[in-house]
Amino acid sequence: VRYKEIECLINDDYSIVGRREGSEVYLPFSFVGKYFEVEGSIASYDGYERFEWHHSIARIHKPVPYKHNGPFMSFAHYSVENRDRVKYFSGTEGVPISTQWDSQGYFYPIQIAQFGLSHYSKNLTETAPHILVVDDGENRSKWTQEDSSSSTNIVYDSVRHTNVIEFKSPAGKPSYGHGVSVSINERSLPVLSFDLLMFRNSTITVVMQTEESGIVNLHYTSHIEECTHRGSNVFYGIGPTFKWRTITRDLITDLRKGMNYKEKQPKTKRKSRTTKILKIYLQGRGRIDNLTLSSSNHMNQFYDAADWLVRHQDNNGGWPIMVNRVVDSDMEELKANWYSAMAQGQAISTLVRAYEKTKESRYLSSAMKGIKLYQVPSTEGGVQARFMDKYQWYEEYPTNPSSFVLNGFIYSLIGLYDLKSSASQENGREAAHLFQEGIKSLKALLPMFDTGSGSIYDLRHITLGKAPNLARWDYHATHITQLQLIASIDPDPIFQRTLDRWIGYIKGKRAKHN
Amino acid sequence: VRYKEIECLINDDYSIVGRREGSEVYLPFSFVGKYFEVEGSIASYDGYERFEWHHSIARIHKPVPYKHNGPFMSFAHYSVENRDRVKYFSGTEGVPISTQWDSQGYFYPIQIAQFGLSHYSKNLTETAPHILVVDDGENRSKWTQEDSSSSTNIVYDSVRHTNVIEFKSPAGKPSYGHGVSVSINERSLPVLSFDLLMFRNSTITVVMQTEESGIVNLHYTSHIEECTHRGSNVFYGIGPTFKWRTITRDLITDLRKGMNYKEKQPKTKRKSRTTKILKIYLQGRGRIDNLTLSSSNHMNQFYDAADWLVRHQDNNGGWPIMVNRVVDSDMEELKANWYSAMAQGQAISTLVRAYEKTKESRYLSSAMKGIKLYQVPSTEGGVQARFMDKYQWYEEYPTNPSSFVLNGFIYSLIGLYDLKSSASQENGREAAHLFQEGIKSLKALLPMFDTGSGSIYDLRHITLGKAPNLARWDYHATHITQLQLIASIDPDPIFQRTLDRWIGYIKGKRAKHN
Ligand SMILES: [Ca+2]
Ligand SMILES: [Ca+2]
Repeated sequence: VRYKEIECLINDDYSIVGRREGSEVYLPFSFVGKYFEVEGSIASYDGYERFEWHHSIARIHKPVPYKHNGPFMSFAHYSVENRDRVKYFSGTEGVPISTQWDSQGYFYPIQIAQFGLSHYSKNLTETAPHILVVDDGENRSKWTQEDSSSSTNIVYDSVRHTNVIEFKSPAGKPSYGHGVSVSINERSLPVLSFDLLMFRNSTITVVMQTEESGIVNLHYTSHIEECTHRGSNVFYGIGPTFKWRTITRDLITDLRKGMNYKEKQPKTKRKSRTTKILKIYLQGRGRIDNLTLSSSNHMNQFYDAADWLVRHQDNNGGWPIMVNRVVDSDMEELKANWYSAMAQGQAISTLVRAYEKTKESRYLSSAMKGIKLYQVPSTEGGVQARFMDKYQWYEEYPTNPSSFVLNGFIYSLIGLYDLKSSASQENGREAAHLFQEGIKSLKALLPMFDTGSGSIYDLRHITLGKAPNLARWDYHATHITQLQLIASIDPDPIFQRTLDRWIGYIKGKRAKHN
Repeated sequence: VRYKEIECLINDDYSIVGRREGSEVYLPFSFVGKYFEVEGSIASYDGYERFEWHHSIARIHKPVPYKHNGPFMSFAHYSVENRDRVKYFSGTEGVPISTQWDSQGYFYPIQIAQFGLSHYSKNLTETAPHILVVDDGENRSKWTQEDSSSSTNIVYDSVRHTNVIEFKSPAGKPSYGHGVSVSINERSLPVLSFDLLMFRNSTITVVMQTEESGIVNLHYTSHIEECTHRGSNVFYGIGPTFKWRTITRDLITDLRKGMNYKEKQPKTKRKSRTTKILKIYLQGRGRIDNLTLSSSNHMNQFYDAADWLVRHQDNNGGWPIMVNRVVDSDMEELKANWYSAMAQGQAISTLVRAYEKTKESRYLSSAMKGIKLYQVPSTEGGVQARFMDKYQWYEEYPTNPSSFVLNGFIYSLIGLYDLKSSASQENGREAAHLFQEGIKSLKALLPMFDTGSGSIYDLRHITLGKAPNLARWDYHATHITQLQLIASIDPDPIFQRTLDRWIGYIKGKRAKHN
């Protein structure tokens, strides 16, 4: 059959050029893909070329039964470190500083909790890390004096009940040729960790060889919070540290965020990094212990997040969000220091896990305080909305009118579930009640988020009377992952049925029409 | 550029064969059209062939401002006569008998009201009919005696205060060669109408020449309700008619329904029908007046519908639907004699128009009784449901759980609007209140019917927790026509905005995703 060009008139609106072979008409994917928003590209397999059509880019993970002390959803696949909206990791807090909605940067409790939960989950799902103990004070010291007035000593620390390294050197700007140093020459262990006590201002400097920028010095100084960059020097203020404190730094992330350094992604997890850790310097005066380099240090990073949440919870039990936020031009602006049920929920999920691991009551009591705002109406500074005066909903954004964001609500429910599962019946009663009411609302309202070919991000179309705010595919995938979790803890068939349907949408299935 | 075959892998599921030219890939419409449910075909214009892609088959009429005594929506385009689900037109009632949901046939008030409303609307929008007065008793009679014992006389009728034709002939089966007859020989005036009074059983026979079946006799007999067919004879029982009554018959429809006769569609409205009306016979004994043939007789047909509604309204003010109906396998079956808010609404719209035309109070008072069931909960035999205990809704199907069918609800609102617009403030107060509450519900719930690429037929997905029951394109078009009407009587921008969006969906536009 000969093929030839044929005009294709689209909806009486405009024409494109197709191809015709007999009774079959062929349409260019450059039209079809754009018209229906589907993805497609030519892939090559040893010279065999094939066109691959993807209805959506969403990828679904196999569901696993959920436990309040297990991995958090699919967060083991998250890397908060790699997000563009992380300005850098705080030297004083060890947690990310977000630029989402405010380029200045601020501590965004949801991002911090997600950082904690992802490392908690990675710790459970990844193989054990490789660890190089640089010095734990228990062996002969490896430190080199860079100048004659600097020295190290092994001393017994009566607070920590262990031997530690005491260092001293003259004051001065962090630089080579001062203080004490230890050689490393290591490519595969990018996470630095140490316990530190300063007697006066001190600096820990890590010298790194980079492919893109040559030698770079990462300085962890006793300055207050900062992340600055001058020439080949990057400065993180870890703050005056006059009590023992554990500090964990992902050096590659610190390089990347500190000087916009982009390391070429290594082919495998632990091999062939192009960035090499050459040396570590100590300057100033203080004590250090358990100086290690490791392939990962998930639990330290998890506790950085959990401890931040304990320290920064306010009197309402909330983790206020410190930026103004316009969710929709037809809604009132959320004024800085609003609360988010998603932040509360994710913080609680983090704190419950910290409590499960440590049994330290401060984590549990912080989690319990975290549910107070669930009971306060969003019109009175809390996070609780009501759908048609009937179904209570915990708002990711406590907007006026209400927005009923689905994924944030489910995260808030997971927090409640985690708390009720971990706490005693007495301590968990309120969480259990809030959870039950929330699940009731979820069952009633879930179908409203279903378009028959995808899902809707929130219910602002109902409260504002406008177009549905369709969920892009990655949010649709989040909805699915969340429903997998909920289905594993609640047998109501609505969850499994919705799940099956929503997974089908990813491959272009649709609900029936009448 | 060379053109060659290329495998196209669809969603990692299956492969089809496309065509490739350089970096462009062409996909066969036999795949694309089915995958996305879009229509397309090759059209030819004087040899120029073009492929025409139609996102949907829905066609939208231009909106016109709505009036309670004006045309009803786009019903002037309806033809109840042509619907397959009309068994035939009742000889005793002049209205359609439906086979929808019951092949036996029954009087379905919605179909009857739509029959009335479509003729009312046609009467306002079509040009005036052509009318042939066969005999009105005012001129010398044209009747031929077929046998010596049959005769006609012009007499003055003291009930009708006009001259009429009195006919008499021996009793006997309807057939040629008896009674009196008049020759017609007419192709373009298919609607027969006459006023009739029987003194004893009588038959009016219309002899027609058909292309498909030769000579066919349509007999309107004094038998009770029936429509039977023997050879070239079709019998409609118009019932014993011992009081004056106006009878209007669409002869082509009577032929078609009576003997499954399919007349080839004439090219224009009044020309070249292949069916010819040859003769009319009268047998028995009675009086007849205003015997006419016309191109249409919309108002007579409209009054047949309105009068049926007045006669068949029950003590609850309802027009019960006499068949069992399963709306959804997860809902309780509706048992015969359920009420429908759509039936009530469309009946009221019909009755209000009859009242507007005639100012006869029986029409208005029937319409007013028709709203009583709007106030009775669907759980108690009425039609009122509540969405989340908050928004009242008049149910096309008063199911348990509720179904919240959109188009039926809007028809029920239009009925209320018509009544409140026609009645005095006093008489219209309750309708006005029910309308106001309904419009409030419509504004609140309308966004729930919006998928971002089409509309949903009802809210059963919410009440049953399952997939949305997507509206096929012709229901989507009905939603649009109804919203055009509502937007013309309520300035709330939600209606015009929704309308603009829903019209866009017809051409493949979609709501944004986030
Ligand atoms: Ca030690
Ligand atoms: Ca007369």
